Amino acid sequence: MDNTTMIAVASIVIAGLTTSFGCLGPALAEGKAVATALTSLAQQPDASATITRTLFVGLAMIESTAIYCFVVSMILIFANPFWNHVIDLTAGK
Amino acid sequence: MDNTTMIAVASIVIAGLTTSFGCLGPALAEGKAVATALTSLAQQPDASATITRTLFVGLAMIESTAIYCFVVSMILIFANPFWNHVIDLTAGK
Amino acid sequence: MDNTTMIAVASIVIAGLTTSFGCLGPALAEGKAVATALTSLAQQPDASATITRTLFVGLAMIESTAIYCFVVSMILIFANPFWNHVIDLTAGK
Amino acid sequence: MDNTTMIAVASIVIAGLTTSFGCLGPALAEGKAVATALTSLAQQPDASATITRTLFVGLAMIESTAIYCFVVSMILIFANPFWNHVIDLTAGK
Amino acid sequence: MDNTTMIAVASIVIAGLTTSFGCLGPALAEGKAVATALTSLAQQPDASATITRTLFVGLAMIESTAIYCFVVSMILIFANPFWNHVIDLTAGK
Amino acid sequence: MDNTTMIAVASIVIAGLTTSFGCLGPALAEGKAVATALTSLAQQPDASATITRTLFVGLAMIESTAIYCFVVSMILIFANPFWNHVIDLTAGK
Amino acid sequence: MDNTTMIAVASIVIAGLTTSFGCLGPALAEGKAVATALTSLAQQPDASATITRTLFVGLAMIESTAIYCFVVSMILIFANPFWNHVIDLTAGK
Amino acid sequence: MDNTTMIAVASIVIAGLTTSFGCLGPALAEGKAVATALTSLAQQPDASATITRTLFVGLAMIESTAIYCFVVSMILIFANPFWNHVIDLTAGK
Amino acid sequence: MDNTTMIAVASIVIAGLTTSFGCLGPALAEGKAVATALTSLAQQPDASATITRTLFVGLAMIESTAIYCFVVSMILIFANPFWNHVIDLTAGK
Amino acid sequence: MDNTTMIAVASIVIAGLTTSFGCLGPALAEGKAVATALTSLAQQPDASATITRTLFVGLAMIESTAIYCFVVSMILIFANPFWNHVIDLTAGK
Amino acid sequence: MDNTTMIAVASIVIAGLTTSFGCLGPALAEGKAVATALTSLAQQPDASATITRTLFVGLAMIESTAIYCFVVSMILIFANPFWNHVIDLTAGK
Amino acid sequence: MDNTTMIAVASIVIAGLTTSFGCLGPALAEGKAVATALTSLAQQPDASATITRTLFVGLAMIESTAIYCFVVSMILIFANPFWNHVIDLTAGK
Amino acid sequence: MDNTTMIAVASIVIAGLTTSFGCLGPALAEGKAVATALTSLAQQPDASATITRTLFVGLAMIESTAIYCFVVSMILIFANPFWNHVIDLTAGK
Amino acid sequence: MDNTTMIAVASIVIAGLTTSFGCLGPALAEGKAVATALTSLAQQPDASATITRTLFVGLAMIESTAIYCFVVSMILIFANPFWNHVIDLTAGK
Repeated sequence: MDNTTMIAVASIVIAGLTTSFGCLGPALAEGKAVATALTSLAQQPDASATITRTLFVGLAMIESTAIYCFVVSMILIFANPFWNHVIDLTAGK
Repeated sequence: MDNTTMIAVASIVIAGLTTSFGCLGPALAEGKAVATALTSLAQQPDASATITRTLFVGLAMIESTAIYCFVVSMILIFANPFWNHVIDLTAGK
Repeated sequence: MDNTTMIAVASIVIAGLTTSFGCLGPALAEGKAVATALTSLAQQPDASATITRTLFVGLAMIESTAIYCFVVSMILIFANPFWNHVIDLTAGK
Repeated sequence: MDNTTMIAVASIVIAGLTTSFGCLGPALAEGKAVATALTSLAQQPDASATITRTLFVGLAMIESTAIYCFVVSMILIFANPFWNHVIDLTAGK
Repeated sequence: MDNTTMIAVASIVIAGLTTSFGCLGPALAEGKAVATALTSLAQQPDASATITRTLFVGLAMIESTAIYCFVVSMILIFANPFWNHVIDLTAGK
Repeated sequence: MDNTTMIAVASIVIAGLTTSFGCLGPALAEGKAVATALTSLAQQPDASATITRTLFVGLAMIESTAIYCFVVSMILIFANPFWNHVIDLTAGK
Repeated sequence: MDNTTMIAVASIVIAGLTTSFGCLGPALAEGKAVATALTSLAQQPDASATITRTLFVGLAMIESTAIYCFVVSMILIFANPFWNHVIDLTAGK
Repeated sequence: MDNTTMIAVASIVIAGLTTSFGCLGPALAEGKAVATALTSLAQQPDASATITRTLFVGLAMIESTAIYCFVVSMILIFANPFWNHVIDLTAGK
Repeated sequence: MDNTTMIAVASIVIAGLTTSFGCLGPALAEGKAVATALTSLAQQPDASATITRTLFVGLAMIESTAIYCFVVSMILIFANPFWNHVIDLTAGK
Repeated sequence: MDNTTMIAVASIVIAGLTTSFGCLGPALAEGKAVATALTSLAQQPDASATITRTLFVGLAMIESTAIYCFVVSMILIFANPFWNHVIDLTAGK
Repeated sequence: MDNTTMIAVASIVIAGLTTSFGCLGPALAEGKAVATALTSLAQQPDASATITRTLFVGLAMIESTAIYCFVVSMILIFANPFWNHVIDLTAGK
Repeated sequence: MDNTTMIAVASIVIAGLTTSFGCLGPALAEGKAVATALTSLAQQPDASATITRTLFVGLAMIESTAIYCFVVSMILIFANPFWNHVIDLTAGK
Repeated sequence: MDNTTMIAVASIVIAGLTTSFGCLGPALAEGKAVATALTSLAQQPDASATITRTLFVGLAMIESTAIYCFVVSMILIFANPFWNHVIDLTAGK
Repeated sequence: MDNTTMIAVASIVIAGLTTSFGCLGPALAEGKAVATALTSLAQQPDASATITRTLFVGLAMIESTAIYCFVVSMILIFANPFWNHVIDLTAGK
């Protein structure tokens, strides 16, 4: 059963690291975008509609990279093809 | 029982690292967003409604990446499919 | 008893690292937020009510990420499901 | 079956790291692009059409590098030629 | 007695690292907060009451993260549940 | 079959790392180029034709380095001469 | 006597690292605070009483984090409960 | 056949790393050059001919260092003298 | 005699590292404080008494953290309780 | 034949690393030089002859360091005295 | 004689590292202090007496941390109590 | 023949690293010097003779450090005294 | 003779590292001091006597830390007490 | 003959690293000094005599630290006392 364990350990480790490391960039990028939006609003309150809209589109784009990482984590935990293969093998044995 | 232990150790290690490392980015990003909000408020007190609203939406987006990490940690500690599989195996044995 | 020890060591190590590393980001972020609040107060003393309120909401959001890490540490030390499982096993044996 | 496991572990590890590390650059770059777009909008609201269009083209270019990484991850998880080769071998054995 | 020693060593190592590493962030953050407070005082001496009060609240928030780390260290040295468990075991043996 | 596995593992690992690491530089560089383009457009809307053209040429140059990395990854996964050699050997054996 | 030695070595190593690493942050933070105090004094000599008082309170707060580290080091060298336990054991044996 | 494998693994690993790492510098440098070109065009539209020409010469120089790395990668994959020597040896054996 | 040697080696290594690493922070901090003092003196020669006094108090505070490290080093070399314990043991044996 | 392989592996690894790492500095330096040239051209179009000439001399100097690295790589791959010595030995044996 | 050698090796290694690493901070700090002194002299030549005096006091403070490191190195090379102890032992044996 | 190989491998590895790492500093330094020369030429075209002369003397000084590294690499590849000694030994044996 | 070799290797390694690493700080610090001296001379040519004198005193202080490192290297190569001790032992044996 | 080889390998490795790493600092420092000299010349062409003289003295001081490293490398390659000792031993044996 050693193989099953190794795949499980690898999946656990990588699922955690992917989410935590993959959130570093998007979080900082969103922080920067939000911060600039606030500066721009204070500087040009009249353009608040355009600024807010552009901000939300931008946040959606940035969040998408965080979503990629979260999705890969979820695949590795709940729909891992390598794990399924090994489980099927040991079950059929 | 070696396999159970290895999965437990991996889950503990990654649960901790995911939360602690995954909080680094959001914390810094929120710090930047709050700091700019304060600067903007001091610069343009009249726009305080728009600034505050945009700040809260932004903080929610950033906090969401921290939440992803916390959720993965909780899954690894309390609903870990690999751990459950191994426990079921050793129990049914 | 080797397995118990490994889980204990992993829990100790990660409990400490999670808290100490997880406090780095929030501390720096709070330092930045407080520093900007002071600058803003010196620049626009009339807006001190709004600034102080926004600062406290922001500090609460940032502190929350430190709390996540502290909670995970406490769970790992005092309510660790893997530890409990292994203790129950060795006790029932 | 050791070989199958090693290839599975390598694929899992690299699929996660590729996505999480590969999202760092694009996320930061998009954050910078969005932030500058907001500054430019606040500075020159009249040019908002050109700015928005250039921003979206730029975001698409940057997102493309994140997509490359995501695609490589997906190939490694769901269409891995090395894994297929090894599985065929062990199945035909 | 090997297990006892391993837990003791892990507790010593982590107790020290948690405090020393966990003090890095708060110290730098407090340095920044104090420095900005001094700048603000020099710039707006009339607002010294508000500035001083906000500074102290902020320092308290930041210090709290250092306290978390110190508390975890103290728990690991003087109230370590894993150590107590192992000591009880070897004593009762 | 150990050799086949080692080459497969190395190819998987390097294919992932090459793409993910190789996208870091181009992504950041494109982010910088797009950001400056937006600033320039806001500053000199009349020169938008020249700016846009120069931006696209520049983005193409930068993207080319990301393409090099992606191509090397694809070669390593789908047209790897070392893998083919080893497969031929084991097949002919 | 191997266990005693391991605990002694760990205590020595961590006592030194805790103090030396734990002094990095406070030293830099105090340097920053003192530097800003000097700038503020040169800029606003009339507020020297308030500035000096705030500086000393701030230095005390920052120094406290260095003290935490020094205290942990001293505990590990001169009042180490794990060391005492092991010494008692070997003495009573 | 161990030697063949080691050389193959080394060639794969280094071919990937050389391209991915070697593209980091040129990509950033081109990003900087393009960004400054855009700033200069916005500042002095009249000199656009000279600026564009100098930019293209500069980009060619910078791209040349990326080409060096790509060439070394291709040599290592498709025209590797060490690999050829070992293959000849094992074939002639 | 292996244990004695290990403790001696650990003490030597840590005594050196504690002093050298522990001096990094204070040296940089004092450099910053002295540098700002010189700037302030050049800017406001009339406040030279207050500036010099504050500088010396600040330098004393910063130097204290270097002293902590030096003291720990000296304790580890010349008054190391773990070394004394082991020497006594081997002497009494 | 182990020795031959080790020398081959070392040559492959270092040939790749020398080129890829050695191109980092020159690429960044050329990027900086080109960028400043563009700024200078925009600022002083009249001095474009002197600026262009100085830029090309400078780029040649910087490129020379990249050439050194490329030359060392080529020597290691195609004219490696250590490899030749070992090949002669094994051939003459 | 293995123990003697280990202590000698540790002393050599740490003596060198302590001096070389311990000189990094003071050198940079003195560079900064001297640089600011020169700026201040150019800005306020009339205050040259006060500036020079403060500079020398500051340099003495900073140099002191380099001296600490040099002293520890010299102690480890020429007056190492652990080395003396081991030499006495082997001599008396 | 193991010794010969080890010396050969060490020489290959260090020859490559010395050149590639040793070119990093000079390349960046020359990039900075050339960049400042271009800025200075744009700012003060009349002093172009003095600036160009000083630039060339400076570049020669900086290039000299890159030459040192290249020379050491060449010595290690083509005139390595340790290699010659070992070759003589094995030849004379 | 293994002990002699280990001490020789350690002395060689540390002698080189001490000089090369120990020169990093002083070189950068002197570069900064010289650079500021040149700026100051250009800004205030009348104070050139005071500036030059202060620069030379400063350079002497900074160079002293590089000398410490060089001296330790020379001691380790030509007057190493540990090496002498071991040589005497093996000679007298 | 293992000892001779180890000393040779250590000497080769350290000779290369000392030169390449030891040139990093001086190269960057000279780049900075030359760059500032060019800025100063452009700003104050009348002081070119004083500036050039100070620059050359400064470059000589900085180059001296690179010379130290080169000298240590040459000593380690061509006048290594440890190597000579071991060669004499093996020759006399």
